[in-house]
Amino acid sequence: MLWYDGKVIEEQDARFNLADRGLLLGDGVFETLPAFNGLPFLMGAHLDRIMAAAEQLDIPLERITLEAAITELAQLDPAPCVIRLTVTRGAGPRGLVPPKAMNPLVFSTRTPWNPSLAFSAMTLATTAIRRNPTSPTSSRKTLAYLDNLMGIKEAQAKGADDALFLSTDGSIACTSMANLFIVKGNSLLTPLLKGSVLPGIMRQFLIDQAPKLGIEVSEKTLYLEDLLQADQVFATNSVRFLTRITALDGAILSNRGTEVVKALVEVMAEAVRVNNRGFEIKPALMTG
Amino acid sequence: MLWYDGKVIEEQDARFNLADRGLLLGDGVFETLPAFNGLPFLMGAHLDRIMAAAEQLDIPLERITLEAAITELAQLDPAPCVIRLTVTRGAGPRGLVPPKAMNPLVFSTRTPWNPSLAFSAMTLATTAIRRNPTSPTSSRKTLAYLDNLMGIKEAQAKGADDALFLSTDGSIACTSMANLFIVKGNSLLTPLLKGSVLPGIMRQFLIDQAPKLGIEVSEKTLYLEDLLQADQVFATNSVRFLTRITALDGAILSNRGTEVVKALVEVMAEAVRVNNRGFEIKPALMTG
Repeated sequence: MLWYDGKVIEEQDARFNLADRGLLLGDGVFETLPAFNGLPFLMGAHLDRIMAAAEQLDIPLERITLEAAITELAQLDPAPCVIRLTVTRGAGPRGLVPPKAMNPLVFSTRTPWNPSLAFSAMTLATTAIRRNPTSPTSSRKTLAYLDNLMGIKEAQAKGADDALFLSTDGSIACTSMANLFIVKGNSLLTPLLKGSVLPGIMRQFLIDQAPKLGIEVSEKTLYLEDLLQADQVFATNSVRFLTRITALDGAILSNRGTEVVKALVEVMAEAVRVNNRGFEIKPALMTG
Repeated sequence: MLWYDGKVIEEQDARFNLADRGLLLGDGVFETLPAFNGLPFLMGAHLDRIMAAAEQLDIPLERITLEAAITELAQLDPAPCVIRLTVTRGAGPRGLVPPKAMNPLVFSTRTPWNPSLAFSAMTLATTAIRRNPTSPTSSRKTLAYLDNLMGIKEAQAKGADDALFLSTDGSIACTSMANLFIVKGNSLLTPLLKGSVLPGIMRQFLIDQAPKLGIEVSEKTLYLEDLLQADQVFATNSVRFLTRITALDGAILSNRGTEVVKALVEVMAEAVRVNNRGFEIKPALMTG
């Protein structure tokens, strides 16, 4: 289903202006979040992030419109789903300079959420594409997302599931769709944002929640050897929650941090239960 | 007017799938070129470039389709126009990984070409956004064009006309829409491509044509001081041809290379006359 121009409609009924700058120039921003039992999960944080991104791009937006675009789709059906919210600057004349009078386009779509996405495992291969800390495309979810998909394409051609992106300074940044964490003993390390990394919603959730479990979290410049020497490496993403990274560039990664990972998974699962009318995201594979 | 799905139609008749990856992810490529007297200018070079870009992105395309999308719009009317050709990977399921079965979308639009675009002058301000040589968005005309428009926005906020982009290594790359050249005596210097710079069609035209005028051209790593110490700085772009850069970050640039610039302008104008049934692009401002 599609939320478009203020209401839920059939997808074939949408009109679209081919002069839209989102299509022609990547001039827009988006968010993706899950909903369970008719309720979006951590919507406030996603709205904060897209409002900040739109402000950097100078796209005028009403938060209440975005909220409606998410909640109306979530409420259609209690089945778990993924909602993608897309905002473009709207149509403009030829050229790069944004028009003075803007008419942003807001739409959102709803697709099924597959339980197998949550708490799974994947392998990474390092991509040659570096994250550029001076580009807004590295720290915002913009429609100019090509680097991310070219990275994952390269990684999958090497037989891995996703790409590991380094920043231009050679430090660890993120995957094409997730933030990265390292478990070292009873503590967590995650790369500093520094412009190269999207400020992940689940990343911030763990930074806030892990200390309550007695697990210390530090943001730090990390390198490939830190991943290779970690007790455990995992990725966080709003739709996939926590994904264990089992190998990097063909090297098997340690699985010694399982107890810490289990505790974090339980905190995430509990947050969904509390916020989403008892919905249970924790699949059997992580409970063993 | 619009060329869409194999024919020329009214713009309001176009259908568009909101699951198109060009819109959602910047997953596509484009070209912009002028046409005069019903004929596109240097279309072969533009087709070569977009075919190479699509190949890097692994988007299957037929060159003959792209040629039709350009020539049919050009032939509609002899009035000078700008044709933009846009290619997306087409629609796909949610997520970054391209679908195995692709159905690329090709469309093109025609808008009037304003003679004041050609052989004009502009000022530059350096943007904080660096060109990332590891990203395909730096060396290809992709739909993920956000850095370019954020750069020009920043430059215009500083009172300049366009942005000067440096590469991540600090060397000169390009403007948001043009390649850069320096005149030194009777020779030209232009930045090496090295992944950070779009291989401009007019850039290559000058590299090929200038030696015939006895003007040597070298591709070289250039820095800000090279621009400040040049006899003349100019930019090249397929729609604007050659644009003199009169100031950089508020510093007035030299105008000592006028004779060389005049000779290059004449070569460009002559190429248009020969290829486009005598069309005259050379405005009075450059003939004085």
